[in-house]
Amino acid sequence: MPHINLPAGVPGIRSLFSFRPETAAPLNLLAQTLLHNPHPTLTAGERELIATYVSSLNNCKYCATIHGAIAKHQLGNDGETVKRLVTDMENAPVSDKLKALLRIAAKVQTGGQNVTETDVAEARNEGATDLEIHDTVLIAAAFCMYNRYVDGLATFQPDDDELYDQMGAIRAREGYHSGPLTLKKNEAVTEAS
Amino acid sequence: MPHINLPAGVPGIRSLFSFRPETAAPLNLLAQTLLHNPHPTLTAGERELIATYVSSLNNCKYCATIHGAIAKHQLGNDGETVKRLVTDMENAPVSDKLKALLRIAAKVQTGGQNVTETDVAEARNEGATDLEIHDTVLIAAAFCMYNRYVDGLATFQPDDDELYDQMGAIRAREGYHSGPLTLKKNEAVTEAS
Repeated sequence: MPHINLPAGVPGIRSLFSFRPETAAPLNLLAQTLLHNPHPTLTAGERELIATYVSSLNNCKYCATIHGAIAKHQLGNDGETVKRLVTDMENAPVSDKLKALLRIAAKVQTGGQNVTETDVAEARNEGATDLEIHDTVLIAAAFCMYNRYVDGLATFQPDDDELYDQMGAIRAREGYHSGPLTLKKNEAVTEAS
Repeated sequence: MPHINLPAGVPGIRSLFSFRPETAAPLNLLAQTLLHNPHPTLTAGERELIATYVSSLNNCKYCATIHGAIAKHQLGNDGETVKRLVTDMENAPVSDKLKALLRIAAKVQTGGQNVTETDVAEARNEGATDLEIHDTVLIAAAFCMYNRYVDGLATFQPDDDELYDQMGAIRAREGYHSGPLTLKKNEAVTEAS
């Protein structure tokens, strides 16, 4: 039961975007810029994995599941990598550079001051650039916001994995915006991610 | 020493806005919408106090000091309220409704799932509306992001209280945007908040 009067049946952050369109605009634009827009070196799939990992560390079911589904579709329907990321990151089938960035993201999740020069040096040793380190810190910080927003108002978070997968496929294709999703023929999912 | 190559002498989040203008735009718009734009019931000073309180709980010196200075100026040069808020919130000279909202903000700071129905009911008993509860949760969540962003990249954070006060006066007047500050005659401060 949400803590405030939100539209019934609309899950997670989308119910909050409907409640407060003024703040939905910058929140969607931030996600679009960090996760979906072209990046010189990090793929959308890698950036979604960082978002998924931090949401998982924050135990935010809605964000971890929907961004895990988006990551899966951005990675070419690779659900196995997402599953291994959230259960055993150090042995997940991702690059050593991404693992070093994910370690920085995990430090950010516990508090910004916990990121050390050593953490950053280790990422650089794996080839990470300033932009990659910056974006990793900001993605991790941003999901410490989105997760708290979604959970702090006790939004509706469905249990249906298939629903998240359908929403993830659409979000991976369309990116982040405040408007309704554009469904392809036979896609029946309602606006929900 | 910042973890990435940021413009020298530019403090806190402003150095990050200069490094990555694409993400500066939504981050400034979010702050402008939550903290500075007109609100039906919460003053800008009250909203800045929530931002200051959460930044203080996160031990983010830059954000706590600059938003404390902005709050002071939004409250009509009332530095005493800001000082008491960050040292002893329960006895600070603010309304019982704002104290109930600040307690919710403190729960959000530790994790969104820690906000209880009782916390929300107590705020409602003091007259808090859905919009006030929503905005409190989002301000608290957003400062869990801004604080981690500023500290996670080890930005330059000056020690000069007078500098923060000058920047706070200007930001209280002008709001949040990516561009340079507009100085009045005799205002010598550099772009810094």
